[in-house]
Amino acid sequence: MSLLIVGTVAFDTIATPFGKADMVVGGSAQYGAYAASYFVNSINLVSIIGDDFPQSELDELRSRGVQLEGLKVVDGGKSFFWEGKYHDNMNDRDTLITDLNVLADFDPVLPDSYKNSEYILLGNLTPDIQISVLEQLDVKPKLVMLDTMNLWIDIARDSLMKAISMCDVLTINDEEARMLSGEHSIVQAAAKILEFGPRYLIIKKGEHGALLFDQDNVFFAPAMPLDRVTDPTGAGDCFAGGFLGYMAKTGDISFDNMKRGLIYGAAMASFVVEDFGNHRIKRVTQADIKERIIRFIKLSQFTI
Amino acid sequence: MSLLIVGTVAFDTIATPFGKADMVVGGSAQYGAYAASYFVNSINLVSIIGDDFPQSELDELRSRGVQLEGLKVVDGGKSFFWEGKYHDNMNDRDTLITDLNVLADFDPVLPDSYKNSEYILLGNLTPDIQISVLEQLDVKPKLVMLDTMNLWIDIARDSLMKAISMCDVLTINDEEARMLSGEHSIVQAAAKILEFGPRYLIIKKGEHGALLFDQDNVFFAPAMPLDRVTDPTGAGDCFAGGFLGYMAKTGDISFDNMKRGLIYGAAMASFVVEDFGNHRIKRVTQADIKERIIRFIKLSQFTI
Repeated sequence: MSLLIVGTVAFDTIATPFGKADMVVGGSAQYGAYAASYFVNSINLVSIIGDDFPQSELDELRSRGVQLEGLKVVDGGKSFFWEGKYHDNMNDRDTLITDLNVLADFDPVLPDSYKNSEYILLGNLTPDIQISVLEQLDVKPKLVMLDTMNLWIDIARDSLMKAISMCDVLTINDEEARMLSGEHSIVQAAAKILEFGPRYLIIKKGEHGALLFDQDNVFFAPAMPLDRVTDPTGAGDCFAGGFLGYMAKTGDISFDNMKRGLIYGAAMASFVVEDFGNHRIKRVTQADIKERIIRFIKLSQFTI
Repeated sequence: MSLLIVGTVAFDTIATPFGKADMVVGGSAQYGAYAASYFVNSINLVSIIGDDFPQSELDELRSRGVQLEGLKVVDGGKSFFWEGKYHDNMNDRDTLITDLNVLADFDPVLPDSYKNSEYILLGNLTPDIQISVLEQLDVKPKLVMLDTMNLWIDIARDSLMKAISMCDVLTINDEEARMLSGEHSIVQAAAKILEFGPRYLIIKKGEHGALLFDQDNVFFAPAMPLDRVTDPTGAGDCFAGGFLGYMAKTGDISFDNMKRGLIYGAAMASFVVEDFGNHRIKRVTQADIKERIIRFIKLSQFTI
C-alpha cells in the first residue's frame, strides 16, 4: 500500500536540559517518513529543501523506500530552519528562530506517480497546501490523516475548516482541540470536532499519551514512561508516521486496528525522543519495535 | 478482610467553573471509606470531628459497614474546614481557607477492635500521626498504603521518610514524586523513591491517570475521559479507597491484582468527580461499577 507524506524537511537547532544539537536534520515529513518506513516500503514524500541539504540524508531516506520525486530542491535556496529551546519540564518549548526560507514559496505539484497513493499524511503546513495536495489526487484515498497547529486555527480558520472536512483522521494536541472547539472538556471538544467532518480524531497529550475518538468509541494509548527524554522534537510526527505506516501495512481501517496503530505510533514516538534529531529513529530495528510493543502490553493491559 | 482508614472527616466549601457548594461533607477518610464500602463491609475509620457534624452522615457511613468507634467527637469542637477554588482547567486549585479546628490536636488512639486490621489506608495527615497508628497495631498488616503531600515533604521530611519506610504502597502525585526524589524523570523518580522502602509506588497524575511501579514493573491506569468534571475534590481519596477496598476484598497483593485494583480505584475516582462533595460517590451501584469497568476495558485494552 502506498503512503504519501507531505510536510517539512528541515534543519533544527535544539536545546534541551540534556544538551544542544546544532543544525540537525528535522521536519515533519522527514520524521514521518522514517517512522513509517518500518512498516511500508512505498512512501511518496512531498516537500521542499534548498541545495544546502546533505545528500547522504536523502540517500538514506531513498534506501528505505522513500520516493523523492516530489521533493523539490531549490538551487541556491536554503532549507527551512527552526531553533527552539525546551523548558525543564520538556513539555513546553520556546521558538527562538523560524526561517521559512524555501518553504515560504512552497506550492507542491504532485508527480503523476504519487497521484494514486492510498494513505495520505498531511503534515502541519498551511491548510491551503493541504487542500491543494488532496485536490491533485486521481483516486479517493483509503485514509487521509491531517495534522495542524494553533497558528492556523488563529489565522486561517476558514481554510483549516475546509481541510479538516476533507480528512478522515484529524490529529491535534489537547490545547488545540480546546481552541478549535471552544470546549474545555476533552470529551465535549472531541464531539464537536467530529461534527466538522473527520470520522476520527486523535488528541495528542505528549507524555500523557493520546486519545482516539470516533462517534461511538474512545481509546487511550499511553506514552511509554522513559528513563530519559533527550529531545521531544519529532515525537508527534513519528507518532503519526508510525500510525499511518501501520494502517498502510495492514490495510485495515477498523477502529480495532486503529487501536493497534496508535500503539505502534506511540512506540515510534518513544524511540525518537531518546536522542537528538533523527539519530535514534534512524537506528531502530524490527526487534526493537517488537520489544517496545511488549513493553506497551505490560504497561497497559490487564485482565478482569 | 478488615480495612483501617485513617484521615480527615471534614466540611468543604468548593467553587468550580460549574458552581459552588457550601459546607459539604468531605475529608480523605470519609471519601476513602465510601469508595472502599463498595468492596468490603468491615471498615474501621479513625478520625476526629466536632459536634457540628450531621448525625445523618454518620448513620449513612455506619449503614455501609463503616465502624466509627475510632471516630473521636469533640464536644463543643468544630470539624476541620477547607475552602478552595478550582481554576478553569480543573487541575489547579487555590486554597482559600484551612481551619484545622479539632484536627489541630488529633492524636489517634486505636480501639482494640481495630488493632488486627489487615489493610491500612493512611490518608494524608502528619507523618507522625501515620507512624503512631502503625505502631499501635497488634499484628503486621498485609498491606499498608500511605498518602502524603508536598507540605510534609517541605516541613517534616525526616518523619515522612520514616513513615514511607514503614509502608508497602506509597501514593503521591507527579509533582510530589519529583520533589521527594529530586529527579525530573518520573521513571528515575520512581526508582529512587522505591529505594526509600515501599515495595510499590503509585504516582497519580489527575486527569492523566496513574502509574504503579515496583522494582521490575510499571503499569499505567488511565483516567476515564468524562463529559464533565464537576468537582475534582476527593478523586485521589476515592482512588485510594477503591484500590485498597479491592485489595482487601480479593486478598491478593500480587502486581497483577494491583493492576485490577488501580482500575477499580480509577473507576471510583471517575464517579466522585461527577458531582460536588460526596453526592455522587454515595449513590453508586454495583451495576454502575460494572458498567464503568467495561468502559475502562474498552478505553485501554487492545490485541496485537
